[in-house]
Amino acid sequence: MQHRKRIRIGVIGGANPVSSAVHDAYTVGRLIAEKGALLVCGGLTGVMEAAARGCREAGGLSIGILPGENRESANPFIDIPVATGMGYSRNALVVMNSDVLIAVDGKYGTLSEIAYSCVQGKPVFGINTWDIKGVQPVRSPEEAVTKALRHFYPLLS
Amino acid sequence: MQHRKRIRIGVIGGANPVSSAVHDAYTVGRLIAEKGALLVCGGLTGVMEAAARGCREAGGLSIGILPGENRESANPFIDIPVATGMGYSRNALVVMNSDVLIAVDGKYGTLSEIAYSCVQGKPVFGINTWDIKGVQPVRSPEEAVTKALRHFYPLLS
Amino acid sequence: MQHRKRIRIGVIGGANPVSSAVHDAYTVGRLIAEKGALLVCGGLTGVMEAAARGCREAGGLSIGILPGENRESANPFIDIPVATGMGYSRNALVVMNSDVLIAVDGKYGTLSEIAYSCVQGKPVFGINTWDIKGVQPVRSPEEAVTKALRHFYPLLS
Amino acid sequence: MQHRKRIRIGVIGGANPVSSAVHDAYTVGRLIAEKGALLVCGGLTGVMEAAARGCREAGGLSIGILPGENRESANPFIDIPVATGMGYSRNALVVMNSDVLIAVDGKYGTLSEIAYSCVQGKPVFGINTWDIKGVQPVRSPEEAVTKALRHFYPLLS
Repeated sequence: MQHRKRIRIGVIGGANPVSSAVHDAYTVGRLIAEKGALLVCGGLTGVMEAAARGCREAGGLSIGILPGENRESANPFIDIPVATGMGYSRNALVVMNSDVLIAVDGKYGTLSEIAYSCVQGKPVFGINTWDIKGVQPVRSPEEAVTKALRHFYPLLS
Repeated sequence: MQHRKRIRIGVIGGANPVSSAVHDAYTVGRLIAEKGALLVCGGLTGVMEAAARGCREAGGLSIGILPGENRESANPFIDIPVATGMGYSRNALVVMNSDVLIAVDGKYGTLSEIAYSCVQGKPVFGINTWDIKGVQPVRSPEEAVTKALRHFYPLLS
Repeated sequence: MQHRKRIRIGVIGGANPVSSAVHDAYTVGRLIAEKGALLVCGGLTGVMEAAARGCREAGGLSIGILPGENRESANPFIDIPVATGMGYSRNALVVMNSDVLIAVDGKYGTLSEIAYSCVQGKPVFGINTWDIKGVQPVRSPEEAVTKALRHFYPLLS
Repeated sequence: MQHRKRIRIGVIGGANPVSSAVHDAYTVGRLIAEKGALLVCGGLTGVMEAAARGCREAGGLSIGILPGENRESANPFIDIPVATGMGYSRNALVVMNSDVLIAVDGKYGTLSEIAYSCVQGKPVFGINTWDIKGVQPVRSPEEAVTKALRHFYPLLS
């Protein structure tokens, strides 16, 4: 399938996550690739890097929307780094370029992305992240990716 | 005092607030002007307009950081409209241009601004708004403005 | 007159200009203030600072649209610094927030602003600057400011 | 070769070009793909679409940095649309995400991109475009792509 037509799943979460979050993010990234979706993230470390690594290892494609002006700042598993030079304002663009979001762990940067997801009417599935209205909590990476895709393909088993 | 040297208080909140929030925002705007601070907001309707009106009526100066490309979209009480053409991404700029924030009511756009305030290490005082870590709840416009200014002038009575 | 209703004249030019450009920019800033217009610029050094100084000394008000995240980076004569955190992408916002532009000297940053002025359909008057279609060359600061204002007030003497 | 490691050639030019420019842009896009580089452009019509079509037909990959918030606004030949919601301010991002630029025809939007290329120190090769200092004129799509790549691989035949 053309890259253009794939569902884009945004993975948001902290740059300095707890270790279980790294593992979860890695699995989310793997599953996104295995299911044929594209991974979108902020392109830096922590949850973003773990998800991109999982995606890479499963043969998928990842887009990293970076705060800086140089695409070399992307973690080594990002396939398509996109520089913005906008700093944290780029959080809005991470969401804008995703169809559905999965939040793993995360602090206030992640909260801004959850908020933008809700502003833009995009579902957010959360694994051990902010417990607020607008986030649909799930218990595992498998549940997160399945529910994210089922949002677009209702008959998905 | 020169405009440049004044404390900037950002007022964030919904474009379609409940009526008590309109009243509170108006009083917050008045108090900001009376205390010699500058008002920064998103420049549109609801809480933003009520605060700017209060500020204008008390002789203060307001800056409205707009999502659109035309400064005519600012509400009529904004003195210095600033067009960005960035849509909701401008929420980060509302916070970037404030020293301290007061949140009144508000939905997910406001939540994104609260999140950015925390990312940027700026205090947020909240009146009937999001009940999350990072927001310091206050009971009245007077308490909000006093605490916001006391953050910079600790001996303020 | 309310700030809101004043014509905004954008002054664009290099951060490291030749000395005659500094003098011209200073005079342009003075005249903008004397005529009751607002000065908009990029807020940094060189032509931007000279124009803001002229504006300040003649009692006017200047808005500086900054590339960085901190408004302290504005030159000392800017009254209303606006931080964007966008780097050079903010050049588009300098133009977006002006009604008419005056270019003094300048290199490629100035050229990007001239280009945006033409994209946005705003006149550009140029003093010893880029000699390209779209820039109306003038010989003096007086001619620049008079023609800029006459664009809005055709009967201006 | 990984997408990440490919040279990125930005193709800039008008949305409503003359017909020879459409043909040239198409050939530029084909050659970019044949040489193993990535195509970056603004994602819309005219030169951008012709280049993306050439790239697609030769099996290459194109990134389109869009002014709008929806990636559906990209022309049908863009493989990786990136929404920015920034309007014309996105022109800076087209350049930021390219290593070297080829300008074909074009008006003031293109001029802003040429200016940003020079600000960012990136070479610009031009085919029937702005005749200004900073643009290296070339006579054909072949010459443009060869010179663009030779900038990075000096021994390229």
